Amino acid sequence: MPPLVTLAEISNAQSVIAGRLHRTPTVTSRYLSTLAKSPVSLKLELFQKTGSFKPRGVLNALSTLDQDARARGVISLSAGNHAQALAWGASALGVRSTIVMPRTAQQSKVDATRGYGGDVVLTDADLLETCLTIQRERNLTLIHPFDDPRVIAGQATVGMELVDDVPNVDVVVVACGGGGLLSGVATAVKLRRPSARVIGVEPEGASAMSQSVARGTPVRLDRMDTIADGLAAPFAGRLNLAHVQAYVDQMLVVTDKDIVAALGVLLERCKIVPEPAGAAAIAPLLTGALTIDPGANVAFIICGGNIDRARLKSLL
Amino acid sequence: MPPLVTLAEISNAQSVIAGRLHRTPTVTSRYLSTLAKSPVSLKLELFQKTGSFKPRGVLNALSTLDQDARARGVISLSAGNHAQALAWGASALGVRSTIVMPRTAQQSKVDATRGYGGDVVLTDADLLETCLTIQRERNLTLIHPFDDPRVIAGQATVGMELVDDVPNVDVVVVACGGGGLLSGVATAVKLRRPSARVIGVEPEGASAMSQSVARGTPVRLDRMDTIADGLAAPFAGRLNLAHVQAYVDQMLVVTDKDIVAALGVLLERCKIVPEPAGAAAIAPLLTGALTIDPGANVAFIICGGNIDRARLKSLL
Repeated sequence: MPPLVTLAEISNAQSVIAGRLHRTPTVTSRYLSTLAKSPVSLKLELFQKTGSFKPRGVLNALSTLDQDARARGVISLSAGNHAQALAWGASALGVRSTIVMPRTAQQSKVDATRGYGGDVVLTDADLLETCLTIQRERNLTLIHPFDDPRVIAGQATVGMELVDDVPNVDVVVVACGGGGLLSGVATAVKLRRPSARVIGVEPEGASAMSQSVARGTPVRLDRMDTIADGLAAPFAGRLNLAHVQAYVDQMLVVTDKDIVAALGVLLERCKIVPEPAGAAAIAPLLTGALTIDPGANVAFIICGGNIDRARLKSLL
Repeated sequence: MPPLVTLAEISNAQSVIAGRLHRTPTVTSRYLSTLAKSPVSLKLELFQKTGSFKPRGVLNALSTLDQDARARGVISLSAGNHAQALAWGASALGVRSTIVMPRTAQQSKVDATRGYGGDVVLTDADLLETCLTIQRERNLTLIHPFDDPRVIAGQATVGMELVDDVPNVDVVVVACGGGGLLSGVATAVKLRRPSARVIGVEPEGASAMSQSVARGTPVRLDRMDTIADGLAAPFAGRLNLAHVQAYVDQMLVVTDKDIVAALGVLLERCKIVPEPAGAAAIAPLLTGALTIDPGANVAFIICGGNIDRARLKSLL
């Protein structure tokens, strides 16, 4: 088993991002608390710079690059949120970034990535293969969207802030794509509050982590089918799986219909605009798949909000 | 001129609401800051209990009622946000509430008011007359939606929190219906930071306060025409006008089209769901009507978010 991220590494990531990213708020929801019969908190990470938690991991990873690597530039692959975060974070450090994105990516995410100064390569081919080919050709440094200890430690800062805000938290629910956020948050929460349960949520049509946990090894999906583009990772990270095996108590899957219903509730009742990936965490509360001891303090991470008007309208 | 609300009265209102309402967050916006060429903060009062700032004034007013008045019950008139706040606040104290609402009120606001335990009277007739008739018949206590010093002191707590969060604020922009929020916030801001400018924003189709300021006396509108139902007050409060005359530097008007554009920007860029009234404050930034010294610290109050899915979809 690869070494797991430590509390010292997470604390270091907190120092790296301090003053450069938002300390996002945690709020309570009367509506969801009534539904859950338990006090419900929402960590509003959709208010993070670039619209998702992703710059936490990016800044932490970029902070370790030497001058030479910075001069050569960085590369990654992403459906959009990591793309925006990497373009933004690299530009802030004067580093050139190349991001391989699927041709099916949300146009607004492609535009935003370019707007932050990233060089976007759109492809219909395998993202990782395309990315690794360009990386070798141009001698770039890969900043993996999730399967990297520096990225996991960065995303873990979400969990640190959550435990600071809700010290008596009993259940933490986190959406999962490749597993960067889930593995990071689970690590921070379990190391600081071992009694808390951590639950991961995946779309039924892109459940690489659930399948990987069940098989005990990283699974690669032949195809994905979900509206939650932010969770559409074609494989679970090897290192992420190790953290999930160590620290996550349960994986749940939800349908696209469940995710749309969750998005509607967050809009109407909580007055926030998550993207589908950002709404997924609360979907199992609405369906009843999430079981909570009455009175337990439950926290959901609303991990992203990059959705444009037209797409939002089509989902309402 | 009637006596203006004092800092002592506002501090007292802070004690009344402490622990009973949310201390709503203030966030910054990169997108709006770039647009304004100045640091922009948003006070997210749409996250307040009942979905708007209204329960601040309601709780402060209710706190002054004696046992006899509480036993008889309270009454008011409202297009929706004060209705919800009064129903919620009264129920919390075991007081019966009656709210006269226009038959054209948003159905979701009527439902929410009933859901909080309020007795709703829908009418096509004049709201205030209907309200005063029922008040006399049933010997109820009127909790006016804005023209009341206890309500103004309650709404002023928004301004106190804003100055705590942005101590160097230079410009504060607030939407205006009857003027409860505007007069309260202006009072708090000017008493604590006299150098700050306070600007009120009204819909073109319901600009009672602008007209009242221009005429020097409260103006009653013959008709109103705006999508911002939360700002559709048929008259400016007498006491509110006095506070606006004393503390507000400028009144601006915006069109419904401006408000819809502002709502879209807040949704897409700031990931929050204001109702039209809650988006109105930023509309003059987008149109250019709001002039800001470069680098001045600007704060906008996002005052409410009570809008249902169907209406939101129709506005996108």
